Amino acid sequence: MQLTEVDTPALLIDLDAFECNVAKMAALADKSGMRLRPHSKTHKSPVIALKQIAAGAVGVCCQKVAEAEAMVSGGVKDVLVTNEIVGTGKLRRLMELAKTARVGVCVDNASNVAALAQAASDAGVSVDVLVEVDVGGGRCGVQTGEPVLELARAIVAAPGLRFAGLHAYHGSAQHIRRFGERGAAIAAAAAKASSTRDLLQQHGIACESITGAGTGSFGFEIESGVHTELQAGSYVFMDADYRRNLNADGEFFNGFEQALYVYVTVMSRPAPDRAIVDAGLKALAFDSGMPQTLFAGASYVGASDEHGNIVLEGDAVNAPAFELGQKLKLIPGHCDPTVNLHNWFVCYRGGRVEAVWPVAGRGPGF
Amino acid sequence: MQLTEVDTPALLIDLDAFECNVAKMAALADKSGMRLRPHSKTHKSPVIALKQIAAGAVGVCCQKVAEAEAMVSGGVKDVLVTNEIVGTGKLRRLMELAKTARVGVCVDNASNVAALAQAASDAGVSVDVLVEVDVGGGRCGVQTGEPVLELARAIVAAPGLRFAGLHAYHGSAQHIRRFGERGAAIAAAAAKASSTRDLLQQHGIACESITGAGTGSFGFEIESGVHTELQAGSYVFMDADYRRNLNADGEFFNGFEQALYVYVTVMSRPAPDRAIVDAGLKALAFDSGMPQTLFAGASYVGASDEHGNIVLEGDAVNAPAFELGQKLKLIPGHCDPTVNLHNWFVCYRGGRVEAVWPVAGRGPGF
Repeated sequence: MQLTEVDTPALLIDLDAFECNVAKMAALADKSGMRLRPHSKTHKSPVIALKQIAAGAVGVCCQKVAEAEAMVSGGVKDVLVTNEIVGTGKLRRLMELAKTARVGVCVDNASNVAALAQAASDAGVSVDVLVEVDVGGGRCGVQTGEPVLELARAIVAAPGLRFAGLHAYHGSAQHIRRFGERGAAIAAAAAKASSTRDLLQQHGIACESITGAGTGSFGFEIESGVHTELQAGSYVFMDADYRRNLNADGEFFNGFEQALYVYVTVMSRPAPDRAIVDAGLKALAFDSGMPQTLFAGASYVGASDEHGNIVLEGDAVNAPAFELGQKLKLIPGHCDPTVNLHNWFVCYRGGRVEAVWPVAGRGPGF
Repeated sequence: MQLTEVDTPALLIDLDAFECNVAKMAALADKSGMRLRPHSKTHKSPVIALKQIAAGAVGVCCQKVAEAEAMVSGGVKDVLVTNEIVGTGKLRRLMELAKTARVGVCVDNASNVAALAQAASDAGVSVDVLVEVDVGGGRCGVQTGEPVLELARAIVAAPGLRFAGLHAYHGSAQHIRRFGERGAAIAAAAAKASSTRDLLQQHGIACESITGAGTGSFGFEIESGVHTELQAGSYVFMDADYRRNLNADGEFFNGFEQALYVYVTVMSRPAPDRAIVDAGLKALAFDSGMPQTLFAGASYVGASDEHGNIVLEGDAVNAPAFELGQKLKLIPGHCDPTVNLHNWFVCYRGGRVEAVWPVAGRGPGF
């Protein structure tokens, strides 16, 4: 099947670009001597996870139990839930996974340590537990120092739980545009992680793993010498938001290829300077800005449920690409929530469709 | 099952509020003498569509073929696609529906009229076709006057197509906050529709239907005396964005009950003034602002993929509702794209779950 025969809106993977990204990150991690554990919340696809693992990743990160279930049922043997899991139903399901896979999870509260221990004991399994440290993101996590020591001691003392280290991910640093400022944020995060590691060490508790880093920052975590594991996920696809980050030379970040697109059809040309496409709020995520076209002078400026409004200037006004019925590729503003809207990836190479992969973990499921 | 036993994040319908909304809009339409054709893009559920029809609606609106398929396969016999359908695959599927249901569709381009006629002829069916008029929304649609006459003539002349009137929906007026300004926008839209109707009439072409109106504006379309059919959809659920509209007295709009919620769990309490819940970009839509809590002093201020950051002030800091593990209801910022993230509605009355309805038309499917 030719790509042009695919009906729209459709979520596309450019396989050449995707494979290049998978290999590049694996090589970078390998060279740095760090473990690579890509975040599967980006793709929610065990097919992709297994390709990342085949290239060298030790396993994957997940953001919730439903994603971990999708990964394990798809053949992944090592999952780390980089999040707190609260509630007896979810904990029971998490422990069920530990019967067939290595499972890790994060905590930031003593009562949650007790609940995890109870669930592990009830299921007769053992899981890795990391303390989430707030290294600057201001989301979940405890503050560095004594609060971490207290939780680590509780984990060490709990049956069925193995203290595995620190979750030290700085989410809000990922999209600091300027290289130097982004680096400074991660240096501060790494300093918090290392002082905490040292404190635990002084009390006889070893941190096997200090895990963190995203596509916007992983170079700094490698440099820090503190982190031992990279969680970057978006690198497999990239998106318009990450492409706005600047590198050390002040240029737009181009360390990875754009591999993810939403394929759309021009469904109306109400005026020479406007093209309406059939992908809006239900086919693209808008939390990190508008999607981008691949054409100079063609800007996606607004969306409603099933419409995207593209303003055309200069040569784009008369470009064949924007004639009624034409199909074109858009770069999503934010890859993760865009993928979550779709049921499958249409994977192509050149102009030909090679595969369709389900977005197995799609949905807000718990 | 008790509501408190439902795991999170989950999409909830408060059945008492929902039934009240369905009945109220049906009564308003009935009193006005206008047809009610609620938009199913809000709920994507034939179960809900059939309840609206049982209350008096003539059928439903859909925004794309996939939604129309979900409605017809769920038992709805009259669907109007309030949008242009472009591409042979989609047109073939649309005509297939016309074998078992009354199908209407919009056009704003002569080549699309020809494509519709060809598809109708190929399938041996007949469909209603409306000309979409740009009455101020600046999205799809042709300008009033001669361009409409030209398209209407083409439709009248085309085999398999029945000219059914005008699609005159003013989307961008729905959320104009002030009552008077919103009314003025709809008055201008109605004037455009009526002058176009008159022009067609002068040329011997009758407009059986002038369809439009949303939850933010339908009172003005009723007043206008121009529209014959109401398309409002969000009224069944309501959302934070519509609740910010003002009524004639300058108060927040409360014409309908809040019937839709996303149920969440407090998964972290990293600080006394912050609660993190387990619903972010993948369980709630953010295109029209943040979701709202039901508590004074508790504001949802930011989201990542699976986290919502709630800032607590005053009494909310120590409220039992925000203790770790507690579940609470959030009002979505925008109902349509929030529903589209979920696979099912959990429908409750009082504290008890009564039904689970699938979001049958979910997804960006074409």
